[in-house]
Amino acid sequence: MIEEQTPERLREAFIGAMGRVMASVTIVTTDGGAGRFGVTVSAMSSVSADPPLLLACINRRSPACRAIAENRVFGVNVLSTEQREVAQIFAGRSPSGPPFDFGCAEWRVHYSGAPILQGAVAAFDCRLLTSYDAGTHRIFIGEVIEAFAGAGQPLLYGSRRYARADRL
Amino acid sequence: MIEEQTPERLREAFIGAMGRVMASVTIVTTDGGAGRFGVTVSAMSSVSADPPLLLACINRRSPACRAIAENRVFGVNVLSTEQREVAQIFAGRSPSGPPFDFGCAEWRVHYSGAPILQGAVAAFDCRLLTSYDAGTHRIFIGEVIEAFAGAGQPLLYGSRRYARADRL
Repeated sequence: MIEEQTPERLREAFIGAMGRVMASVTIVTTDGGAGRFGVTVSAMSSVSADPPLLLACINRRSPACRAIAENRVFGVNVLSTEQREVAQIFAGRSPSGPPFDFGCAEWRVHYSGAPILQGAVAAFDCRLLTSYDAGTHRIFIGEVIEAFAGAGQPLLYGSRRYARADRL
Repeated sequence: MIEEQTPERLREAFIGAMGRVMASVTIVTTDGGAGRFGVTVSAMSSVSADPPLLLACINRRSPACRAIAENRVFGVNVLSTEQREVAQIFAGRSPSGPPFDFGCAEWRVHYSGAPILQGAVAAFDCRLLTSYDAGTHRIFIGEVIEAFAGAGQPLLYGSRRYARADRL
């Protein structure tokens, strides 16, 4: 019988293994009575096409988390390989500009009022359907009210680096 | 004021826009009293590191969905670029072998009993923590009990094709 890992070792193994996964990089935004916020998120996924639903997992300590819960709307912006700097700014770790600053790019507003990024590979304007707390994060389920497909190639992140997709 | 899209157009726009997203390809497996099943899933995401949690969205009409709910355990296997054929088999669309056939690869079993794929880029052995229905799909939240990092490069899928990640 194999011994069960300690919580510390399991956490380390989980982070190491999950780091191998490559995912598209998104900026999740919101605006409304609770203010305008955006945060870089790679934990985003399609959920259903009938009706169109998606999800995004956001750290509960992020100001964007509380604001999405209160504003009840959010936008999901799938970054292109040209928007690496925007990813860094909304991850709070840009060397070149103020963190979380919407001035770094152009945005427009549709139904929900959440900022939708110009030049994104894809974008989704969502009403918050429901949310679930899970560990350190909250899973937001969005009912998509508008979906946009743009040009460009999606920016990927994994193994602690940005990447682009190449045909196999 | 922009007119709201009809449900049909919104669905089409959603599928088109979500198709632009690139994601790592996984096989979600289960075994137990409700039987052994596996299905190809790209809607998988990390949720939390403290404690280690992840999620996978599975069509409620998939036999794997019912089996995971009953077995209360599942494995998430992140495929490498060498495992494209395994992805096709567990998507039920391989031209070369029977669909959903575990004989196409080597698997081992850890705590949960869910099949863990040899040669995967990463793998996670999970107990089912909870699940939520959302549209056509069910969101399974897994408590990770073991995590494995392997070698190789993750297999990506998006824009209706397989791909690999290249450094930017």
